[in-house]
Amino acid sequence: MTPHTATPAITTGPLPASAKIYVPGAVHNDIRVPMREISTHPTAGEPPLPVYDSSGPYTDPEFVPVIHEGLPALRADWIARRGDTESYAGRETRPEDNGFARGDHLVPEFPAKRAPLKAVKGKAVTQLAYARAGMITPEMEFVAIRENLKRESVASQRDGDAFGATLPDIVTPEFVRQEIAAGRAILPANINHPELEPMIIGRNFRVKINANIGTSAVTSSMEEEVEKMVWATRWGADTVMDLSTGRNIHNTREWILRNSPVPIGTVPLYQALEKVKGIAEDLTWDVFRDTLIEQAEQGVDYFTIHAGVRLHMVPMTVGRVTGIVSRGGSIIAKWCLHHHKESFLYERFDEICDICRAYDVSFSLGDGLRPGSIADANDEAQFAELETLGELTKIAWAKDCQVMIEGPGHVAMHKIKENMDKQLECCHEAPFYTLGPLTTDIAPGYDHITSSIGAAMIGWYGCAMLCYVTPKEHLGLPDREDVKTGVVTYKIAAHAADLAKGLPGAQARDDALSRARFEFRWEDQFNLALDPETARDFHDQTLPKEAHKVAHFCSMCGPKFCSMRISHDIRAEAQKEGTEAMAMKYRTGGDLYMPVNGAAEQG
Amino acid sequence: MTPHTATPAITTGPLPASAKIYVPGAVHNDIRVPMREISTHPTAGEPPLPVYDSSGPYTDPEFVPVIHEGLPALRADWIARRGDTESYAGRETRPEDNGFARGDHLVPEFPAKRAPLKAVKGKAVTQLAYARAGMITPEMEFVAIRENLKRESVASQRDGDAFGATLPDIVTPEFVRQEIAAGRAILPANINHPELEPMIIGRNFRVKINANIGTSAVTSSMEEEVEKMVWATRWGADTVMDLSTGRNIHNTREWILRNSPVPIGTVPLYQALEKVKGIAEDLTWDVFRDTLIEQAEQGVDYFTIHAGVRLHMVPMTVGRVTGIVSRGGSIIAKWCLHHHKESFLYERFDEICDICRAYDVSFSLGDGLRPGSIADANDEAQFAELETLGELTKIAWAKDCQVMIEGPGHVAMHKIKENMDKQLECCHEAPFYTLGPLTTDIAPGYDHITSSIGAAMIGWYGCAMLCYVTPKEHLGLPDREDVKTGVVTYKIAAHAADLAKGLPGAQARDDALSRARFEFRWEDQFNLALDPETARDFHDQTLPKEAHKVAHFCSMCGPKFCSMRISHDIRAEAQKEGTEAMAMKYRTGGDLYMPVNGAAEQG
Repeated sequence: MTPHTATPAITTGPLPASAKIYVPGAVHNDIRVPMREISTHPTAGEPPLPVYDSSGPYTDPEFVPVIHEGLPALRADWIARRGDTESYAGRETRPEDNGFARGDHLVPEFPAKRAPLKAVKGKAVTQLAYARAGMITPEMEFVAIRENLKRESVASQRDGDAFGATLPDIVTPEFVRQEIAAGRAILPANINHPELEPMIIGRNFRVKINANIGTSAVTSSMEEEVEKMVWATRWGADTVMDLSTGRNIHNTREWILRNSPVPIGTVPLYQALEKVKGIAEDLTWDVFRDTLIEQAEQGVDYFTIHAGVRLHMVPMTVGRVTGIVSRGGSIIAKWCLHHHKESFLYERFDEICDICRAYDVSFSLGDGLRPGSIADANDEAQFAELETLGELTKIAWAKDCQVMIEGPGHVAMHKIKENMDKQLECCHEAPFYTLGPLTTDIAPGYDHITSSIGAAMIGWYGCAMLCYVTPKEHLGLPDREDVKTGVVTYKIAAHAADLAKGLPGAQARDDALSRARFEFRWEDQFNLALDPETARDFHDQTLPKEAHKVAHFCSMCGPKFCSMRISHDIRAEAQKEGTEAMAMKYRTGGDLYMPVNGAAEQG
Repeated sequence: MTPHTATPAITTGPLPASAKIYVPGAVHNDIRVPMREISTHPTAGEPPLPVYDSSGPYTDPEFVPVIHEGLPALRADWIARRGDTESYAGRETRPEDNGFARGDHLVPEFPAKRAPLKAVKGKAVTQLAYARAGMITPEMEFVAIRENLKRESVASQRDGDAFGATLPDIVTPEFVRQEIAAGRAILPANINHPELEPMIIGRNFRVKINANIGTSAVTSSMEEEVEKMVWATRWGADTVMDLSTGRNIHNTREWILRNSPVPIGTVPLYQALEKVKGIAEDLTWDVFRDTLIEQAEQGVDYFTIHAGVRLHMVPMTVGRVTGIVSRGGSIIAKWCLHHHKESFLYERFDEICDICRAYDVSFSLGDGLRPGSIADANDEAQFAELETLGELTKIAWAKDCQVMIEGPGHVAMHKIKENMDKQLECCHEAPFYTLGPLTTDIAPGYDHITSSIGAAMIGWYGCAMLCYVTPKEHLGLPDREDVKTGVVTYKIAAHAADLAKGLPGAQARDDALSRARFEFRWEDQFNLALDPETARDFHDQTLPKEAHKVAHFCSMCGPKFCSMRISHDIRAEAQKEGTEAMAMKYRTGGDLYMPVNGAAEQG
């Protein structure tokens, strides 16, 4: 066997001025929760700022990735200790799993194949089942620590409007358990994805973001596919959906899963369709079921299932401007029409639940009839499906399965809140996971922006996870820079939502960056930014010299006009004589001015 | 005299598939209101779509710009006909007007100097004075036609929430007059800027956007400075602020004004400070007054005046995270502290009004104490100044001066509405004009995005004009691409706001583009976009071949998975048998599914 060495194609190493730290558990002593701490200049006199870190070991300077081996199986012991799973000879890989790719076209299998686990007969191995049983799993304690980000040491500002969300001062493991038990949050973590660092999706926690990746039609290497996932998480993607189509779906997914520190979601229907050579009408329950097992054994953490698309809803889309824009939704609609019956997703939903229950695959109930244009938002078809998703939620919950609900799409600002309110009501507070929404249709090439507006707003109103949109949406496949732009844009939307909800401690990073700005600590300003590289690059384009990084002015105003410098002078005066004294001194100013002409009342 | 030929540095020519049209007036028969009409493919069977056009003659294929001559004086006759102005020998240009630039460093004077106009003694020549007198000026009829965009021929959707704004089905000249008379809208149009195509700023009209430009410290040519303005208006800037500092301020501004089809705003304090060599304490009312006259004679359409910063408010900023971030505000604060008295802006406000009244320069009452960080939003200092701006509004109105109010800045989402509501209340419904606001501080390099979220929201709530923010905000000076990105981003925010307010006809462009998307009319999709070039470029990066522009699928799904194609199949079926029949046929589907396990009620 050849030795596996580090793959240079994978981006590693810390972000600027950042250290990886690990916070130990208290209930469970073998958990180590990763965070990133950003240091500031000693003159700031500030402790390092902890920030949420979705990047996994790749940003740990001690870690050397060997993608042929995959990440350490962090959760293997936790899963084993529960004693409710068994190892078995998994399903054999078949030619159709990889779209019949052969020879040079076939991406190699991941070398270190593990036998899959499943629940022992009759057991539910979901975090929901454990939560309902009163268990605080290591996963739950992990996310509690992760969500807090040491917030106990940060002065917390609580002036947001959370629209009914309950954001505790401190997230305790018991709070996490309660939220999962109530179905208000999910902890997507397939027992066959032990490499995963647990995270939680629910409106009483930080707003999360998802990035979509997928194999290109042109051949791409394992390194490239793994790197797409690593790159997206480096900039902040909390989960990644693998939306690959075509050849090599199975093998590529294995490489991604074995190297992914974040939950991986898929739309199993895409692979099932490949297995029937793209003919929607040829899909069967058997093919679909086989695909679910295949993916569950690999460790996929959540499945998008478009079971809410029902036969009688299809005609509701005929009068729309853009019909059905969800790929999954349209495949199912076509199948339903052709066979003149309800889909196997709907009819066999309880069997799908049985599979999810045995591996802890979370549901992401797909919105197959989401609006694809402003004109179609909040229409009969969309809300009819949402009601069905609410019914399916109860069925899944009855089977101890974790559920979140997918949402739109294209929605003008004034119709966004109705989406959130209806979702909470119809789906019994199961977490909402939306794509944007885009607030106008007229800006292809800028749909990361049209959608960041809607995403920030729906995040504020209570949406738990925001699926990113890249600048290439509607036009082409995102490249590396587009993925980064999409992720950073969505981190902005999610953070803006956290601030507006009043998440304790969320403002700490804004304050740290603003202090750096006010004190002309340029390096700190870059380092505290969501994207330090771009911030530094933009600054250097105008003032490239190193000396300017310590200049007490900036390129916009230059030294003469600097408003911040003047504020420092004012502050210095106040410090000299005391703020109160200063205020008193100037308070008399209030009566100085008597206008020559009295102000007449005007319209 | 040398013949003046077209300057190649100026961007001219129509946007793709666009024709310039001119709609004649009915009340005034010498007005021709420009619009852009975007044509679609004949297969669409749709009339050309009229869109708002701020680009002036530069996008008219008949027009050849000669920047040494300037644009035609469109409004000269209208102004003359009113018989209330007189021509006079204007103020002589002085060395300090151009920052003492000489020789090669001095930008040449604009060659075709016109004697300035001012009001004959005792007259107010403002659109507000005319509106109050019951006059419908040509400017008013111009903006009425411009705002309508032929909306009488567009099926108008009215499902927005306008938060108390009154958006009529059709904008009549009389409606425009009433809005101006009530102070709810301004029509910035200095009598010495006859080249301007009138536009209106008020919450009962389309939301507008402003782009800032300025000379760079490094020398730049007249063509370059004019081109900055032309470039910003080409992409949709409704007004342009010239925030130049340093040398050549006077001469550069003259070149811009003579060639500008949009209102030009300035912060006169910047030039006044140059005249006293950057020493704030040395500013005097005489220097400032002289600068106002200088700029009013040139034709500046609106002045930012920071008269709301009062002595007793300065100590309120001491405890802030980022102090005073407005340049004008900090200059005035420094002056007030040094002289221990109220500023000449505040004390001489009525004399400033007299100047504005004689030339119809609109006020943009500056928010010198706006928050520069999330932490400082909606604080005592900010709202104290806002109340003073409300008092000043009444004084200006009493002098027949037009007024808008500047607003923040950095504000988290949950505090935005309070800004709008307080502004309407304190400032008696004078139009609001905000910078963003940015909804988080943590993304330098992406502040066009952090602020587009806030801008869209405050536009929806009633803000009349949004000042753009470019990706370089806080970091450096925007280049050409940054200006375009900023303008397009703000067109998105403004349009999202118009949609959410329910502006009649606003959705027509979204619908046209979405129909093009659904029908795979790729060229139409590009042409209807805010930025056709970028949309086309992004598409070509994935599917470059010309044939793909007519392909009935796109790069994201490929031919097999195309959801839209499947929708077309469904639609075809409905057309064959009738939608009603189709709905009936599938309605029975509603009862097919009986879950094996009844759904238990869960938390």
